[in-house]
Amino acid sequence: MAVYTDVSGEDLAAFLADYDLGDLLSLKGIAEGVENTNYMLHTQKGYFFLTLYEKRTKESDLPFFLGLMEHLAGRGLNCPQPVKNRHGAALGRLSGRAAAIVTFLEGMWPRRQTSAHCAALGEAVAALHLAGEGFALRRPNALSIDSWRPLYESAAARADSVHPGLSALIERELDWLETRWPRGLPEGVIHADLFPDNVFFLGGKLSGLIDFYFACNDSFAYDLAICINAWCFEQDASFNVTKGRAMIENYRRRRPLDAAEIEAFPVLARGAAMRFLLTRLVDWLNIPPGALVKPKDPLEYFRKLRFHQQAASIRDYGADA
Amino acid sequence: MAVYTDVSGEDLAAFLADYDLGDLLSLKGIAEGVENTNYMLHTQKGYFFLTLYEKRTKESDLPFFLGLMEHLAGRGLNCPQPVKNRHGAALGRLSGRAAAIVTFLEGMWPRRQTSAHCAALGEAVAALHLAGEGFALRRPNALSIDSWRPLYESAAARADSVHPGLSALIERELDWLETRWPRGLPEGVIHADLFPDNVFFLGGKLSGLIDFYFACNDSFAYDLAICINAWCFEQDASFNVTKGRAMIENYRRRRPLDAAEIEAFPVLARGAAMRFLLTRLVDWLNIPPGALVKPKDPLEYFRKLRFHQQAASIRDYGADA
Repeated sequence: MAVYTDVSGEDLAAFLADYDLGDLLSLKGIAEGVENTNYMLHTQKGYFFLTLYEKRTKESDLPFFLGLMEHLAGRGLNCPQPVKNRHGAALGRLSGRAAAIVTFLEGMWPRRQTSAHCAALGEAVAALHLAGEGFALRRPNALSIDSWRPLYESAAARADSVHPGLSALIERELDWLETRWPRGLPEGVIHADLFPDNVFFLGGKLSGLIDFYFACNDSFAYDLAICINAWCFEQDASFNVTKGRAMIENYRRRRPLDAAEIEAFPVLARGAAMRFLLTRLVDWLNIPPGALVKPKDPLEYFRKLRFHQQAASIRDYGADA
Repeated sequence: MAVYTDVSGEDLAAFLADYDLGDLLSLKGIAEGVENTNYMLHTQKGYFFLTLYEKRTKESDLPFFLGLMEHLAGRGLNCPQPVKNRHGAALGRLSGRAAAIVTFLEGMWPRRQTSAHCAALGEAVAALHLAGEGFALRRPNALSIDSWRPLYESAAARADSVHPGLSALIERELDWLETRWPRGLPEGVIHADLFPDNVFFLGGKLSGLIDFYFACNDSFAYDLAICINAWCFEQDASFNVTKGRAMIENYRRRRPLDAAEIEAFPVLARGAAMRFLLTRLVDWLNIPPGALVKPKDPLEYFRKLRFHQQAASIRDYGADA
């Protein structure tokens, strides 16, 4: 939760002069989003979301992210839609940052996740995978298996300070994953970060997906495995098979999993846990002085990984094999 | 900038059931406000501001603050107006906190303060002082001169770690202020915290005042002296007499200063600088671990105090004596 870049009324008025949004009425910094600065923007044309991209988001990736939101919204997926300026551009510059305005999406993310939420998300993830078809741009997953060992190495020396034995566990797990990581699974555009705070509900119905800034091309089933990690464990790290079943079976109603995906699922789930364990570990060990953001606990994913290491098949996640 | 208390959709829906605001559409944590948790609330009836009061705001003071906003708005001052629930109450409970919904005020606070802003604020402060007349509740200023020595004593042992010689300067200044602090000046309800982020402008015009959570009964001229401190110094701590003149003379157009207020002004300005020096010093020395808020620099007010110590009359602030 942070506003990294403050915007003056004068700078904003100059930026908005390029848009058909009428006069500025208000701007409020939003305490959500860890990577970028987000504002709620009110103009005579309504409420919008203004994002200033900070250094962790590569500017060269922005056409992919913004183009993808436009592509998905055009195919009926509920997600923020980039607002273009008078020159037809979705991307501009504001207060020294790349900046974009997107439409405001109603709904709240669920603080207490139920099986009904998991069922709705399973269906929405499948719909997202189908809607991504035909999107012209490509972006390899910068946080897939090839990145994990370098990430680990940057944190290896201090990993055991977070938890005794953590470095040995990660090394063994990386060895295991690197020999077994599935290749050639059905792939396309995935969201890659569908945590509860990126999924909105309104009146019990899923109202939309937000935050496409980790979206990339990778295997569909890996995206589902990320969601399983993010939604189907309880506070005590126990896996809730009812939630798992609800998510996977509702996904399959829209996009059936093939035999290779079903077979690979436990490996993908282990990999997804490893990805979040590693990025959280690196963030945890590198809290900048004066940080306005509380880093997330890496050990949550250490515990999830332990569960996945015992899973033999997709049946262990509540789904039919 | 902080959201200290997270609110679930279920808790919020239960809270909103007591209001005539229709269904919940969205809730976004606002990265503004240091003391309390603020959300932008969207319901079928429009956009509102939802505040959860955290521990630094005394619950027994809330009827004063909320009643004052209602009183002032009723007298035509542009400020947030409490929204009452079906039982006629402006105050409720949400997620374990006292909570209130107020109307949403358009405008942006000026990041670069000009003489025109200062002129508009001078007039608005006078209008606020006049509009407060007849408000039935009273709240003594808990941060007036009697509180300064205890505040200093809580920080005395470590004051010199912030700046060499700071403790001696504060002690001498407290001695000086305690013998000369004016009594019996015209008084009434003051805002007591009209910093730039609490004053909104829209299209070059002052559109409203927010954040009445330091409001209290004290001398009107002291409120003006706080504004002079907050608005009329440049980054290098030099005093801008053009801004000072604009603020004071425009105040006087709406509410003339009497001879005693004019005479006392430099003392009030020194006292106002001391008040913010002390509270910032205490905050600076007591940053909680994992703080999400960057404390403000106490030395900014040390430098302002130095200016006030050289001032002999209200003329030194650009105003007519």
